[in-house]
Amino acid sequence: MGQERAADPMRDMEPLDSQLRFLIEADQLKTVLRQSTLMDVSRRENSAEHSWHLALMALVLQGHAPEGTDIGRVSAMVLLHDLVEIDAGDLFLYAGAEAQARQEVAEHAAADRIFALLPAPQAAAFRALWDEFEERGTREAKFARALDRLQPMLVNYQTGGGTWLAHGVTADQVLLRVALIEDGSATLGEYARDLIARSVARGFLAPAP
Amino acid sequence: MGQERAADPMRDMEPLDSQLRFLIEADQLKTVLRQSTLMDVSRRENSAEHSWHLALMALVLQGHAPEGTDIGRVSAMVLLHDLVEIDAGDLFLYAGAEAQARQEVAEHAAADRIFALLPAPQAAAFRALWDEFEERGTREAKFARALDRLQPMLVNYQTGGGTWLAHGVTADQVLLRVALIEDGSATLGEYARDLIARSVARGFLAPAP
Repeated sequence: MGQERAADPMRDMEPLDSQLRFLIEADQLKTVLRQSTLMDVSRRENSAEHSWHLALMALVLQGHAPEGTDIGRVSAMVLLHDLVEIDAGDLFLYAGAEAQARQEVAEHAAADRIFALLPAPQAAAFRALWDEFEERGTREAKFARALDRLQPMLVNYQTGGGTWLAHGVTADQVLLRVALIEDGSATLGEYARDLIARSVARGFLAPAP
Repeated sequence: MGQERAADPMRDMEPLDSQLRFLIEADQLKTVLRQSTLMDVSRRENSAEHSWHLALMALVLQGHAPEGTDIGRVSAMVLLHDLVEIDAGDLFLYAGAEAQARQEVAEHAAADRIFALLPAPQAAAFRALWDEFEERGTREAKFARALDRLQPMLVNYQTGGGTWLAHGVTADQVLLRVALIEDGSATLGEYARDLIARSVARGFLAPAP
């Protein structure tokens, strides 16, 4: 669509053309599959619908964020955070350190390419939101990251073990991740800790070896 | 999860339990299929990933909304607007008047049931957002509805005709829908009108009979 329009200056509608090119590129996130399934176990979840679920969680659970948290920025971060997977793919949360390091390099290269499709001021703003999410320094990023950790735990509980059982993950490994949820929200952290205990009690998650 | 917790008052974590029940119910939106495909035509699009795409569009295209539009409310509306399809299913935009009337009744019943899963004050707030989107009286609702109309047009253009060709839709029918886009955003309306002309020129959309 872009090339064709550039040939006709009468039709030049910047910044709209660049924005639509970005939004058309973004469609590919619907084809990136995560390890998690849907809660009805009918198929694997993709990263676009996962991002929608997180944005809905931000809306519904905003009362559990620290006072003064800007939920609009949380929502923007969760809507954007997985776009890099269009190039880099999704990596399982419990992958090894080497795979994690490779993934980080690939995601940064993807962020360089994908956000640059937008008009320059918007590209910079979106990239800053993505960096903020990755760096986890603000209360908005901490809350967004807490939601991103909590959602697959809910899926695993609802599906009777899900990726925990499929990949032999043990309770101590999951508990390490709860620190990140607690860092974003005290009540969600407490809920997650309780969910892990119930998951172990019900055989959905193996106890620490 | 809810029943089990209610049995143990020490574990009562309202409103969080109700909120999570709602978010678990919401997962089903990922299984509601639309008529549209993904832009790569690999499969039909579901309503959850469609809602994510609209929220991303709200973020990217907010500069094309009328001055003073509250984009946070637009985003909330598009994240919520299709949840009623969990009970009512998705109806094709160009379905007949009788089917549309039946759909409206089913969607209102669904809204009554689904939003009531939330704690009462939040249930009322979410239902009000859904009603606002449906009634299309505010600039936020008008912009949200414009995005909801524009997205499938982009898909149809990118896929060389999509549901327009599959269902024998003609340009005059699509142009009637453009009024709704123009009502939400002058530049997006202009873009949509141009997209229709290009679609007819390229054989993606049949001219008016």
